[in-house]
Amino acid sequence: MHRQEAHLCKTKRSRYASPMFRLLAATKIGRKGNLSTPHGDVPTPVFMPVATAGAMKGLAHTDLEMLGASMMLCNTYHLHLQPGENSIANAGGLHSFVGWDKPILTDSGGFQVFSLRSIRKITDDGVEFRSHLNGNSLFIGPKESITIQHKLGADIIMCFDECPPSTVPRNEIEAAVERTLRWARVCKETHEELCSKKDPSKHPLLFGIVQGGIHMDLRSHCAVELVKIGFDGYAIGGLAVGESEQEMLEIVEHVCPLLPVDRPRYLMGVGKLEQMRSAVARGIDMFDCVLPMREARHGSLYLSSGERLRISGASYAEDHSIIDPHSPSPLSRRHTKSYLRHLLHAGERYGETIACMQNMAVTLQTVRELRRQMNETGSSL
Amino acid sequence: MHRQEAHLCKTKRSRYASPMFRLLAATKIGRKGNLSTPHGDVPTPVFMPVATAGAMKGLAHTDLEMLGASMMLCNTYHLHLQPGENSIANAGGLHSFVGWDKPILTDSGGFQVFSLRSIRKITDDGVEFRSHLNGNSLFIGPKESITIQHKLGADIIMCFDECPPSTVPRNEIEAAVERTLRWARVCKETHEELCSKKDPSKHPLLFGIVQGGIHMDLRSHCAVELVKIGFDGYAIGGLAVGESEQEMLEIVEHVCPLLPVDRPRYLMGVGKLEQMRSAVARGIDMFDCVLPMREARHGSLYLSSGERLRISGASYAEDHSIIDPHSPSPLSRRHTKSYLRHLLHAGERYGETIACMQNMAVTLQTVRELRRQMNETGSSL
Repeated sequence: MHRQEAHLCKTKRSRYASPMFRLLAATKIGRKGNLSTPHGDVPTPVFMPVATAGAMKGLAHTDLEMLGASMMLCNTYHLHLQPGENSIANAGGLHSFVGWDKPILTDSGGFQVFSLRSIRKITDDGVEFRSHLNGNSLFIGPKESITIQHKLGADIIMCFDECPPSTVPRNEIEAAVERTLRWARVCKETHEELCSKKDPSKHPLLFGIVQGGIHMDLRSHCAVELVKIGFDGYAIGGLAVGESEQEMLEIVEHVCPLLPVDRPRYLMGVGKLEQMRSAVARGIDMFDCVLPMREARHGSLYLSSGERLRISGASYAEDHSIIDPHSPSPLSRRHTKSYLRHLLHAGERYGETIACMQNMAVTLQTVRELRRQMNETGSSL
Repeated sequence: MHRQEAHLCKTKRSRYASPMFRLLAATKIGRKGNLSTPHGDVPTPVFMPVATAGAMKGLAHTDLEMLGASMMLCNTYHLHLQPGENSIANAGGLHSFVGWDKPILTDSGGFQVFSLRSIRKITDDGVEFRSHLNGNSLFIGPKESITIQHKLGADIIMCFDECPPSTVPRNEIEAAVERTLRWARVCKETHEELCSKKDPSKHPLLFGIVQGGIHMDLRSHCAVELVKIGFDGYAIGGLAVGESEQEMLEIVEHVCPLLPVDRPRYLMGVGKLEQMRSAVARGIDMFDCVLPMREARHGSLYLSSGERLRISGASYAEDHSIIDPHSPSPLSRRHTKSYLRHLLHAGERYGETIACMQNMAVTLQTVRELRRQMNETGSSL
């Protein structure tokens, strides 16, 4: 943990807790906290499985519960396109609709709109784009995104930000930061207006997103200005999109101390086990990532030992040993490597389920284990 | 139940039980029995889920266990092509390989070879065909099929039969019956030779298959001759392939009384709920069918009330009621119709899982319920 923050922890005890986040320990391996949402508490650090259109690929909600997932992420872009936020609102909101009564976070839709290459026009009000489903022309800006997310009814909602590739010239990143900050103000205004019509127990938490590419001064500027506006939590966006791991961790290390101690910090799109450990040690509390599932579907398994298993290798065709005898996934304790290889080779969906369950189980266990280790590590609080 | 058989039941009590099948009740709604196999007992009537290449689509083995499946069917053709029976034998047999310790039945491969339109040549020794995976030329006859099935290590194995479409001319059906009978003798010889090298506790049960299309005299001839050869159980094949339901049930009603009372009877490829009830009432004990899963994937759901639900209907887009509040599937008690429709519409695999779980749960419950009702119905035993 950054020395400045440890100092903050020691001297400003009154700032350790906000209504939505309680910092329980600040140790050298990371922060242990408790995030309160309208649908219950989430122990942090936390990894959120990504249920794009309201469901995981290959895993049932019951599997996620069994593996200990405490929070789910759904994509606003996909749900806006189908079935639409009005339909979901009619169902009683996202929790009723998808049948998940623990907390849910929705992203803003910005990442999809900017990355799906479907953009027609970017203005100061938002983005005009084409639906990838039917080509329809659609518009989402900060106001629309927050309105959609309020209708969906998630526990944590995200500001609509501009997320350019980190490889574009500095002046483009700079413009994206300014637009992100202008939009953040609109998001907060829209959020407060919508909250004023809702029961306070149902107010979602609104997170701001720090952009700025790999430029430390732009990251600083964005973080400081977002903190001035004031959000319930802060995300670091625009990372894990091509920059080196070292660059990513340097930015995390640079940004975290600029954020309030008593607010949760969410590193978007990161979920590699070692990267999560490194990011937690630098002060991050929340993660989401589709990579563990994508790698699983391609036969790359995370073993509980920390090793990798590329199950497509020919040598596994006759390896009839158990996939991972100490796995937190019951399927990996039941089935053999040769069977899993056969299923993936034959295109049998059960193979994907076994592989996805393994990677999700190990990912969730890694974060849980980090939290457990914090109990044994001296806190500076 | 056929009167003649009820009479048999009454007068020849000593014949009610064989080492592998105990007839517990013969009621007007059907036979209740117990089938003993190397991997444990199976209460009959029984429906066997089809795990083609060793796995179901959309369901985990743990789901099948939770829903009360007591026996699984695997396809010899698919497992022979990949990963191959030698690989499975090296894994310790099919049960170890697929991670299922309850009984397994393998079919002979005949149905696939004859229906995949991959035939190159049929001789008295067997069938030369092309693999649908890589075009390789392969050969399976009665000897090969039984040898493969013994290597796979299932609990119940099937004779290699010729299964022509029921629409072909009578003389072709007649020739197929004669070939099926010749092959049945080879199957039994091969089986006995292979059994002589195995521990008796591991001997699989060998079932003969009655062919004959919709011709009663050919069915009679085939049944009588198979019984003379003598098998552990008898299947009725070549049905549910285009003939009317009435024709099918007439053949079942005609063939069952020709089979020994103390042997299990298996109606291949039938799994429609009402047809299973009708077939059980005519003396059938065992079923398998891929239809419930195929219909599920296409959004046709079997409700526990007995009704059907075509979830793709536009009216379900805003129907936020629970799929089936009294369902034996926990997923259907948890999720709504609108959510399931959304998932299937969006191509999300979890939709298939919810639908498959529902149809499998209702199918297994229907057969279990039949068995329960037999307890309340007077037996003629």
